[in-house]
Amino acid sequence: MPPLDKTSKPTAQAGDLIQLITEKQRHFIFTLKPGATFQSHNGIISHDDLIGLPWGSRVKSHMGKFFALLQPQLDDLLRDIPRRTQIMYPKEIGYVLISLGVGPGSVVLEAGTGSGALTTALAYMVGDDGLVLTYERNPDHAKTAQENLTRYGMAHRVKFHQQDLADGIEAQNVQAAFLDLPDPENYIKIVRPALIPGGILGCFLPTTNQVSTLITALKQNNFENIEVSEILHRYYNPSATRLRPSDKMVGHTGFLIFTRKYALYSESDLQPNT
Amino acid sequence: MPPLDKTSKPTAQAGDLIQLITEKQRHFIFTLKPGATFQSHNGIISHDDLIGLPWGSRVKSHMGKFFALLQPQLDDLLRDIPRRTQIMYPKEIGYVLISLGVGPGSVVLEAGTGSGALTTALAYMVGDDGLVLTYERNPDHAKTAQENLTRYGMAHRVKFHQQDLADGIEAQNVQAAFLDLPDPENYIKIVRPALIPGGILGCFLPTTNQVSTLITALKQNNFENIEVSEILHRYYNPSATRLRPSDKMVGHTGFLIFTRKYALYSESDLQPNT
Amino acid sequence: MPPLDKTSKPTAQAGDLIQLITEKQRHFIFTLKPGATFQSHNGIISHDDLIGLPWGSRVKSHMGKFFALLQPQLDDLLRDIPRRTQIMYPKEIGYVLISLGVGPGSVVLEAGTGSGALTTALAYMVGDDGLVLTYERNPDHAKTAQENLTRYGMAHRVKFHQQDLADGIEAQNVQAAFLDLPDPENYIKIVRPALIPGGILGCFLPTTNQVSTLITALKQNNFENIEVSEILHRYYNPSATRLRPSDKMVGHTGFLIFTRKYALYSESDLQPNT
Amino acid sequence: MPPLDKTSKPTAQAGDLIQLITEKQRHFIFTLKPGATFQSHNGIISHDDLIGLPWGSRVKSHMGKFFALLQPQLDDLLRDIPRRTQIMYPKEIGYVLISLGVGPGSVVLEAGTGSGALTTALAYMVGDDGLVLTYERNPDHAKTAQENLTRYGMAHRVKFHQQDLADGIEAQNVQAAFLDLPDPENYIKIVRPALIPGGILGCFLPTTNQVSTLITALKQNNFENIEVSEILHRYYNPSATRLRPSDKMVGHTGFLIFTRKYALYSESDLQPNT
Repeated sequence: MPPLDKTSKPTAQAGDLIQLITEKQRHFIFTLKPGATFQSHNGIISHDDLIGLPWGSRVKSHMGKFFALLQPQLDDLLRDIPRRTQIMYPKEIGYVLISLGVGPGSVVLEAGTGSGALTTALAYMVGDDGLVLTYERNPDHAKTAQENLTRYGMAHRVKFHQQDLADGIEAQNVQAAFLDLPDPENYIKIVRPALIPGGILGCFLPTTNQVSTLITALKQNNFENIEVSEILHRYYNPSATRLRPSDKMVGHTGFLIFTRKYALYSESDLQPNT
Repeated sequence: MPPLDKTSKPTAQAGDLIQLITEKQRHFIFTLKPGATFQSHNGIISHDDLIGLPWGSRVKSHMGKFFALLQPQLDDLLRDIPRRTQIMYPKEIGYVLISLGVGPGSVVLEAGTGSGALTTALAYMVGDDGLVLTYERNPDHAKTAQENLTRYGMAHRVKFHQQDLADGIEAQNVQAAFLDLPDPENYIKIVRPALIPGGILGCFLPTTNQVSTLITALKQNNFENIEVSEILHRYYNPSATRLRPSDKMVGHTGFLIFTRKYALYSESDLQPNT
Repeated sequence: MPPLDKTSKPTAQAGDLIQLITEKQRHFIFTLKPGATFQSHNGIISHDDLIGLPWGSRVKSHMGKFFALLQPQLDDLLRDIPRRTQIMYPKEIGYVLISLGVGPGSVVLEAGTGSGALTTALAYMVGDDGLVLTYERNPDHAKTAQENLTRYGMAHRVKFHQQDLADGIEAQNVQAAFLDLPDPENYIKIVRPALIPGGILGCFLPTTNQVSTLITALKQNNFENIEVSEILHRYYNPSATRLRPSDKMVGHTGFLIFTRKYALYSESDLQPNT
Repeated sequence: MPPLDKTSKPTAQAGDLIQLITEKQRHFIFTLKPGATFQSHNGIISHDDLIGLPWGSRVKSHMGKFFALLQPQLDDLLRDIPRRTQIMYPKEIGYVLISLGVGPGSVVLEAGTGSGALTTALAYMVGDDGLVLTYERNPDHAKTAQENLTRYGMAHRVKFHQQDLADGIEAQNVQAAFLDLPDPENYIKIVRPALIPGGILGCFLPTTNQVSTLITALKQNNFENIEVSEILHRYYNPSATRLRPSDKMVGHTGFLIFTRKYALYSESDLQPNT
C-alpha cells in the first residue's frame, strides 16, 4: 500500500507505514505490527496502543513524552532513507522531477539506484500507471533500495535491475532518464536510443571536471539544450522576532545537467532522430 | 488531452499541443490546427506541414531556418506561462511539490491561482485521479489561468473558484494547501480545518517582514514543524573548456514556508487535533 | 613591532611574533622568548632553536614532524583571534575596510570592540599615522581585545575605551564609524556628529528584524545612500582533478549596512549638514 | 594629493577630486577647475560655485536639482573605474586586501593592471611608504590605468610597467603578488623568487578549467596552503517594512586562489626556500 493511500482509513491500522514525531521534531517511521513495541530515548509505546487511533493523535510514551501519530509524507520518506553515498537532497529531487517532467503514467529510467532516494520520489510521482526502470551494479545498494521501496509500498512501480547499464537495457520509449553515476559519458550512447524523441536526460555530478567531460560527450552525441546548474537551499531560523539564515548550510551536493534528445543539426531533414 | 499523453500517437496530430525549438533554443508552444500558420522571426511554417510528422522531426521554415518538432514537457509549460506577477520558478515549484507530497490521486488546495504556474505543476502531478482546488480573487488572473490549463489539457483536474478564500471553502480532507498570497496569516484559520491531520501547509512570501508575521500566526494556531527557506538556482555556461557560473542570476523570488497540522501541545490527549 | 614590520630582519628574533604551520596546515602564532618551549601534538620545539633562523625555514620537532617558520600575515591574525561572539569573518572584514575607505592615516571609530578582530584589521590598515577609537562596555572583552592588539604590536594605533558609547564620545572629524552592536539605532544620534561630512557609517547585524529597525532609524536621522547586503563565501576543494565546492559552508554571519552622513533633503541649502 | 588627504581643508579647493551625488544616488567624480562647468541630466553647475564650499554642502543646479558635495571615498573610486574587462568587484577586492595582508608600507606586485581597479585599492592601502609594482602588456589598458591613478592622486605609489611579466621582473622581497591573468600558471616560476618567504600569491580566474590548471602548476612549484573560493554578494532592498533580497544579483565574477611560498616538503631542512 503506497503512502497516503487515498482509500486509507481515518485511523492507523496494522500494516500501515506510520510516523511518530517528537516534541523536538525527531521523526520515526515504521510499520505497525500487532504485539510489537516502539522504543526510543523518549520512551516505549506498544504498537497495539497505536492501532485504531485516528491520524494526528497525540500519544504518550511510558516516560510521559508526547508523540504525534501521522502518515509519513513523501518528504519524510526522502529524509528517512539512510544516506550512504553522496545523495541528492529534496532541493535537487524536486527540480529533477520538474525537469524530467515525471508524472502519473510516466516511464522513466534511472541508474544507479543507490540507496533509492530518487527512486522513491520517481515511483511516488509515476503512480500505479507508470514505471521506474532502475539499474544498480552494487548488490548491497540494490538490495537496500528494493527493501526501502517495498517498505514504502511502492516496489510494484519499480523494475529493479542489479546490473551495469553497459550490459544492455531493453527499455524503449522512455520519456526521461536520470544518471547518478560517476561516468555518465560512458552510458549516453546506450541510453539515447531508449529515449523518445525530445526525451530528457538528466545527470548528477559532484565535480566540475566530471561536468566538463560530460558536456563534451553530450555534444558529440548530438544532445541539445544542455543546461548545467546547481541548487543552493538556505534555511532560516523560524523565529518571528529573530529571523535570520541558519549559521550552517550545505555548500554543495552536486551539479545537475539536463539535456534533450533531438538533433537539429543532423543530416536527415524531416526524419525522427535516433 | 494532457501533455505527453501516454496513449499519444508517434506523430503530431491536429489538436495536439506541440512545441517548436529553434537553433538558438527559443521555444514556441501552440496547438496544431488544420489550415493555420506558425509565424516567427525565423520564418513561416504551415500547420498542415507539421500534422502527421513524427515527434523529433527537424522542420524548415520558408526562410530555411530549422526547428525541432517536440511534445512540450512540464518544464516547457512552466516556462511558457507569462509571468505577470512575482511567480515561482521551477526551482521553487519542484521543492513545493516534494514538500507538499503531491502525487497521483492527491487532493490539494491552492490560493491564489495567479497566472497558473503552480496550478499547472500541481494538476500535472495529481493526474486524472486527483484534484486541485484553486482560488483566485482577481477575475483577470482567474480567466488567464483557466485558459492556460485548458490549453495544456489539464483543466479537468482543477476546480477553479473565482473568489476570496475568506468567503468560505467547502474543501475537506485536503492533503496539502499552498498559499501564494501577500497575507496568508489571515487565511490559516480557514485553511486549517480543511487539512487532514498531519496535512501540510505551504506559503510563498517575498519579504522578511511577511515571514515574521506569518510565523507568529502559525504558532498561535498550533502549527508545528515550521520550516523557512529559500532556494537559489545557479546556472553555468555549458562549455566543457570554459565552465563557469553565469554572470547574472536571479537573486530572489521569495521565501518558502512549510508547516504541518498537528498539535503536540494541545490539552486533549489522544484526540485528533483540528 | 607591528606584524611584517618593513624594517624587520631576514631572520626570526627574540620578541618577534611568529607562526609555525604544520603539514596539515594548522597554524600556531606566538612570540619568541629565549628559553621558552613550544609544545603541540606534533612535538616540542625550543624557542632558542628558532631564534636566528631565516623566515621560511623548515623546522623539525622532537617527534620528527615538520613546521614552516613564518611571519604571521593579517589573515593569520584574524583567524587566530578566539571567536567568543558572533564575529565577522575575513569575507566581511575585507568588504568593511573597502566600504569604510579605511587606509593609512584614517581616523575611525568602532563599537563594540568584542574580541578585537575588526579592531586588528582597522589598526593594521590605518598604520602608524592613523587612529582607531574603540568602545567596549564589557570589561572582559575590552581586556582581551587590548591584550590581542598588544600581542600583535599594534596597540599604539588604538585608543581603547571601556565604556558604553552612550556615555559620550569626544571623537571629532572621524572619517568612518562601525557599530557591531545589537541595537545600533540607539547610538546613531551620538555617532552622527562625530563623522565628517560624507563620513561613512557601517553596522553589522544578525537578524532581519534588527535590520528593519535600523533602516527606520537611519532614515529618521537623515542618513543617505543606505546599502544592505550580505556576503557569502564559498570554498572549493583545491583539487585539480576533483574540483568542487566544499560540502559545508557558513550559511550566515550577519547583514552589513552602510550609509553616509549627508542630508540632501535638509532645509538649509549650501550648508554643511551635521 | 590622495583622496581623503588627512591634511585637507574643510572646504573644496581647486584641484581637489570631488564627487557630486544626486537625489537618486548617481555619483559624479571629477577634479575642480576654476572656470570649468559640470554638466548632467540634472542640470549645470559652475566649478567656481563649488570651490570654497564646505564638504557635505547641498548644491543646486540651474534646473533646481540638488546634489551633495563630498570627497570621494575608496569605494566611490572603485565604482567609478570603467569596467572594460572582467574585473573584480569591491566584494572581491576587500577579500584580496585581507588575504594578501596589504597595508601601510607594503610592497606588492600586480599583473595585469587592467583598468586599474585593484591597483587603486592596493595603492590606497600601501600608503606613501609602500609601493605597488604593476605590469600590463596591453598599452591601452596601461595608459588608462595610469591616468586613473594620476587622477586619484596616487600615481606616486605605483610603478607602472607596460610589459609582459614573462619579459622579466626585477622585484625582490615582495610581500604579496596578485595575478589577474588568464594563464597565471605560466608566470608562477617568475613570481616565486620575488616573494619573501611566506609571501602570498593570489590569482583571479573566471573558469573552473583555469582553476584546475593553476592548482596543478602551484603544486608542482611547491606552493602550500592553496585556498580556492568565490565570494557572492547579495544586496537587499533597504526598506524597513519590505526588506527582501534584490531580484537580480551578480552570479559570478571569478574564483579567487590564494597560496603561500614555503616548502614544507623540500629536501633542504632548515633552509630558506626559494
